[in-house]
Amino acid sequence: MSTTVRDEVTAKGRRGQAAAARLSVLGREQKDRILLTMAEAMEASGERILEANARDVATAEERGTTATPIDRLLLDEARIADMAEGLRTVAHLPDPVGEIIGGWRLPNGLEISQVRVPLGVVGIIYESRPNVTVDAAGLCLKAGNATLLRGGSDAIHSNVALVGILNEAGSAEGLPAGAIEIIETTDRAAAAELMRCTEYVDVLIPRGGGGLIKRVKEESRVPVIETGEGNCHVYVDATADLDQAEAIVVNAKCQRPSVCNAAETLLVHREVAASFLPRAGARLREMGVELRGCEETLRYVPEAKPASEDDWLTEFLSLILAVKVVADVGEAIAHVNRYGTKHSEAILTEDLASARRFTREVDAAAVYVNASTRFTDGGQFGMGAEIGISTQKLHARGPMGLRELTSYKYVIAGQGQTRA
Amino acid sequence: MSTTVRDEVTAKGRRGQAAAARLSVLGREQKDRILLTMAEAMEASGERILEANARDVATAEERGTTATPIDRLLLDEARIADMAEGLRTVAHLPDPVGEIIGGWRLPNGLEISQVRVPLGVVGIIYESRPNVTVDAAGLCLKAGNATLLRGGSDAIHSNVALVGILNEAGSAEGLPAGAIEIIETTDRAAAAELMRCTEYVDVLIPRGGGGLIKRVKEESRVPVIETGEGNCHVYVDATADLDQAEAIVVNAKCQRPSVCNAAETLLVHREVAASFLPRAGARLREMGVELRGCEETLRYVPEAKPASEDDWLTEFLSLILAVKVVADVGEAIAHVNRYGTKHSEAILTEDLASARRFTREVDAAAVYVNASTRFTDGGQFGMGAEIGISTQKLHARGPMGLRELTSYKYVIAGQGQTRA
Repeated sequence: MSTTVRDEVTAKGRRGQAAAARLSVLGREQKDRILLTMAEAMEASGERILEANARDVATAEERGTTATPIDRLLLDEARIADMAEGLRTVAHLPDPVGEIIGGWRLPNGLEISQVRVPLGVVGIIYESRPNVTVDAAGLCLKAGNATLLRGGSDAIHSNVALVGILNEAGSAEGLPAGAIEIIETTDRAAAAELMRCTEYVDVLIPRGGGGLIKRVKEESRVPVIETGEGNCHVYVDATADLDQAEAIVVNAKCQRPSVCNAAETLLVHREVAASFLPRAGARLREMGVELRGCEETLRYVPEAKPASEDDWLTEFLSLILAVKVVADVGEAIAHVNRYGTKHSEAILTEDLASARRFTREVDAAAVYVNASTRFTDGGQFGMGAEIGISTQKLHARGPMGLRELTSYKYVIAGQGQTRA
Repeated sequence: MSTTVRDEVTAKGRRGQAAAARLSVLGREQKDRILLTMAEAMEASGERILEANARDVATAEERGTTATPIDRLLLDEARIADMAEGLRTVAHLPDPVGEIIGGWRLPNGLEISQVRVPLGVVGIIYESRPNVTVDAAGLCLKAGNATLLRGGSDAIHSNVALVGILNEAGSAEGLPAGAIEIIETTDRAAAAELMRCTEYVDVLIPRGGGGLIKRVKEESRVPVIETGEGNCHVYVDATADLDQAEAIVVNAKCQRPSVCNAAETLLVHREVAASFLPRAGARLREMGVELRGCEETLRYVPEAKPASEDDWLTEFLSLILAVKVVADVGEAIAHVNRYGTKHSEAILTEDLASARRFTREVDAAAVYVNASTRFTDGGQFGMGAEIGISTQKLHARGPMGLRELTSYKYVIAGQGQTRA
């Protein structure tokens, strides 16, 4: 591993840690002023951003990159305005730092308060969307954290330009140096260094595809918050309102199939398979969905392809839906807990006992009764913004907003107490 | 790595995961009945436990193990009674599972509840004290988790006997098979397998010395909660009540020097160095404390040894105290944040501004004003019991009781909502 790469990551980590100490005591007024100034600077710097972005896009085109990744990479006036708007949204959210989570008095008179504090230095490893640079930096800043960014090499010019603009605007309002750093070395060694920078980085959040998340999970020595993978199910129980069920299944699959909270498998109670599957199958195929069914499903939807074991495991992220008929809610729960990724799971039912059993026994970040899985999202949940959806159980689960970017400390007020 | 070791760890992890699903829906009454039956069985099985323990002690003595580690290993009637009492204490604590942490209604009518749920399978890697076996299993069970234990090889017979008794007693009251498993292979490969068993283990908690914790932190692919290391400071500010300060310093250093919340460094404001250090130094030396001071300290306590840079970094865990004179509260905070391990830190002062600055700026799990650092403990904090003191910022910080052994899920009740 080259010394230069290590030097860059270590130096930026150290600067980040120093900045984090100052950020942790910054008041809300100042943080909001910094965020609003950054938003203005974003909008005022359109030309500089677009110029840097054009270099990235040109390089990608030279390499023969296809249309979809180029679209992810591309910035325009509207996307710049969205990033600025994102910063303003964060500025208007309550400050999580300093919140008293709880407190109590001990028999010996000690007064304990549990006070929300920043995490410190948050590392973000992400892929080609340059908007992550601004979104992540804004959220981390509001939660009092320093951000150490490592974006995809294809967006490097865009990312460096964005970080430059954020820092220039922020420093005029007192943003400490080192609060937002980006690693400029683009080879994989830089990511590897970030993943072992335990001395300066408190937590690492990967944002991107399954391959990236798997690599970070396996390699990182810095604690990781796993995000994103969603093999989500909708289960139509025997007593479901079938009109409502059809609308929810279509919404969960089709409203935005490329995202983690879209449904990938439909489970249907045997008692309603004959009445539900033909109509839902026809509607889904109208919407362009390819169905892959178990043997019993094929009886009701003969146009479906047969499903393989792999289909139960796959997050299609496209207009494909696996379909399985189950004997009862118990089999549905067992299927979800076996094949799911603990993201978002829904039961559609009018039966209280089924609803209770599904919500208790399904192990997932978000468990829905009679609603689409598509609501698992910081914005939809009313958190204002999010840095990702955690699919692990440690620290934070589900949408991660500002509170989920914090830790806490105990502050204990005494009057001379010693331990007997 | 031998296939047999991997087979054992994987098989027990898989059993643990299956048990965890059943434990997660066990009611409080049943869990408490299991714990109380286990406590009775502990007391009724004294002979079996002492016999197994005698084998471990004999092996240790053959190997020429010294008195202190043998004392850690040794069980007697009183220690068995303590373990049973520990299980009863946990039985009487409230059940954290099912607690509604928060909830709100969205504009579209969705009702969100954030509900406390178990973590799943908790791995514990620990050293020679056999009581950890029973304490950890009891706490994990009450929080609805399965426990996968990996104890020190020197206590293997004791640990296997204890786990056998817990399972036999528990299963009579409905404890699922696999709820408490112990890895019986004693070589290091078994620990290595546990650390990479991400498929079945949700979190790993190391309990033991610095070497163990460092190894787990570096090697584990399972998320880790770091516990234990405490390089704690007491800072005597210019306005401190010096009688109170002397009592607190003596308590923090001497009341139980071998534990993580004992003080290791004393910081003294220059303005009170001449009045405080001679008297405190004399008192500490009376108590058998070796002092290692900075140059200025040596002027007031000539009997002290000169402190080296290493002394500021060391968790002595014995009757040694490093002493440094500082210019002001700012220098004290800087010293603590540079050399501390984010465990427990105290300021002794009558000045409100100093107290506020210290509690805001010191980055540690527990920050005290006018009290001994020795209170950082689940029992002292009123949590009833603890599995360790977390020194990391992710998930849980400070004493980890039952709540800290849980995660949460969002349960969302809808009436047909789809996303627009």
